[in-house]
Amino acid sequence: MPSRPDLEITSPANPRLKQVVGLRRRRARDDAGLTVVEGFEELTLAIGAGVRPRTVFYAPELMLDADAQLALVDDARRDGVETIRVSRSAFGKMAYREGPDGFLALVPAVRRSLADLDLPDAPLLLICEGLEKPGNLGAMLRTADAAGVDAVIAVDPVTDWGNPNVVRGSKGTVFAVPVASATLGETVDWLREGGIRLVATTPDTDALHTDTDLTGGVAIAVGTEKFGLTDEALAAADARVRIPMHGAVNSLNASAAAAIVVYEAVRQRGSANR
Amino acid sequence: MPSRPDLEITSPANPRLKQVVGLRRRRARDDAGLTVVEGFEELTLAIGAGVRPRTVFYAPELMLDADAQLALVDDARRDGVETIRVSRSAFGKMAYREGPDGFLALVPAVRRSLADLDLPDAPLLLICEGLEKPGNLGAMLRTADAAGVDAVIAVDPVTDWGNPNVVRGSKGTVFAVPVASATLGETVDWLREGGIRLVATTPDTDALHTDTDLTGGVAIAVGTEKFGLTDEALAAADARVRIPMHGAVNSLNASAAAAIVVYEAVRQRGSANR
Repeated sequence: MPSRPDLEITSPANPRLKQVVGLRRRRARDDAGLTVVEGFEELTLAIGAGVRPRTVFYAPELMLDADAQLALVDDARRDGVETIRVSRSAFGKMAYREGPDGFLALVPAVRRSLADLDLPDAPLLLICEGLEKPGNLGAMLRTADAAGVDAVIAVDPVTDWGNPNVVRGSKGTVFAVPVASATLGETVDWLREGGIRLVATTPDTDALHTDTDLTGGVAIAVGTEKFGLTDEALAAADARVRIPMHGAVNSLNASAAAAIVVYEAVRQRGSANR
Repeated sequence: MPSRPDLEITSPANPRLKQVVGLRRRRARDDAGLTVVEGFEELTLAIGAGVRPRTVFYAPELMLDADAQLALVDDARRDGVETIRVSRSAFGKMAYREGPDGFLALVPAVRRSLADLDLPDAPLLLICEGLEKPGNLGAMLRTADAAGVDAVIAVDPVTDWGNPNVVRGSKGTVFAVPVASATLGETVDWLREGGIRLVATTPDTDALHTDTDLTGGVAIAVGTEKFGLTDEALAAADARVRIPMHGAVNSLNASAAAAIVVYEAVRQRGSANR
């Protein structure tokens, strides 16, 4: 069924289009309190996770299945969300990804502090220290979602949760998995208050991740691909574990390392987590 | 010590430069039998794995530590390798990555068939069916290297081992881990002859990867992120395993899934693999 647009953008000079392009800068996102969600699948997941968009931009000409997908636009409009139709060429200017699928929305920024997290008893947490690659952070969120991790905490992050490449790489799971950002000091204090053990992954230990108890309240910490965790994080850890390595390079992709240790925790925690 | 170049390229119109740019197309790589290796770290690893470059292009102005890194160029020249100095701007045209570090080499294509693989008893193999994302294939090679996987086989691959983004994403491990490409039929026959069990990862089974025997001669197969393994691959498998999932999306990054199952095999195979 055809949608009746409230407004249509066809010019690349349109100020609303320029606003979206401007949100590629982190500062602009922070100032506006907005995150960009691109893609039908990602937007569907965000809405399913309770996110209410401020604005949905859509380009029927770019949709894979406009008849079915325009229902998302109709539902949003019915809920009072601003919906703006955009021509194919104008959408191309606005889109972040190659091969856009005709959906892009502005949603309230994901901004949570440690105090906002509502955790179960004996939670399983993933802590990412200093991660700079949005793609890695996105992949870790997908792993955290699949593994049932209770929250992901970015410690002293270089990238932000609202980075469009994080949202995209996470397939929208950034809206489904509880996330927070904090300094290392805040995080360590908060873990201690909650009785949650900090388990640091590092090559500099003899303890394998598979030989270390990862049941109970545990926060698994991973650092950057290049430098690993900081000395401060290692010093604050209750346990250090390493992933066995015997190759020419001895370096795993950061998100692969996180997946390996998180899923070892899932294995140890047994059927309750399956 | 300063290097005396055999030749210097400063013009973006130089035919050698154009040749390198042309190798971005798979067809051109196949025809020339060449693979492009970019980056000091990747090239060092390739050479360490026994690769002998045909040509090393280098731009001292772009090097992080030209004094130390030019030794690689000197060593190559001493071994009879053609070395070509390139100006900063010309190198920028030639480079595939953003922020090039002044090293790019043409090396003989990695082209191995199943028959060329020289495996130990009871090998651990990783099979990637139909993978299209070079970054995922690169990350899987890093995992395979770290885990001591004996070979990685690309079945009916959409991308090729010589894709510059595979080489780059693999941090050069594509030259350290034995790799091959084959059709599914060839691979299944070859596994049967070798007494190697094919273990397929799929969401459509009750058997968890952690409850399935992954010792002995085992080939772990992963499919594409979107569609998983083909019906043909699933039908040929000796066992099917799933990774437990309980999130909103129920989809792991393909390389994360491979890392989880491969490292469960490493755990089960015990101290010999550590």
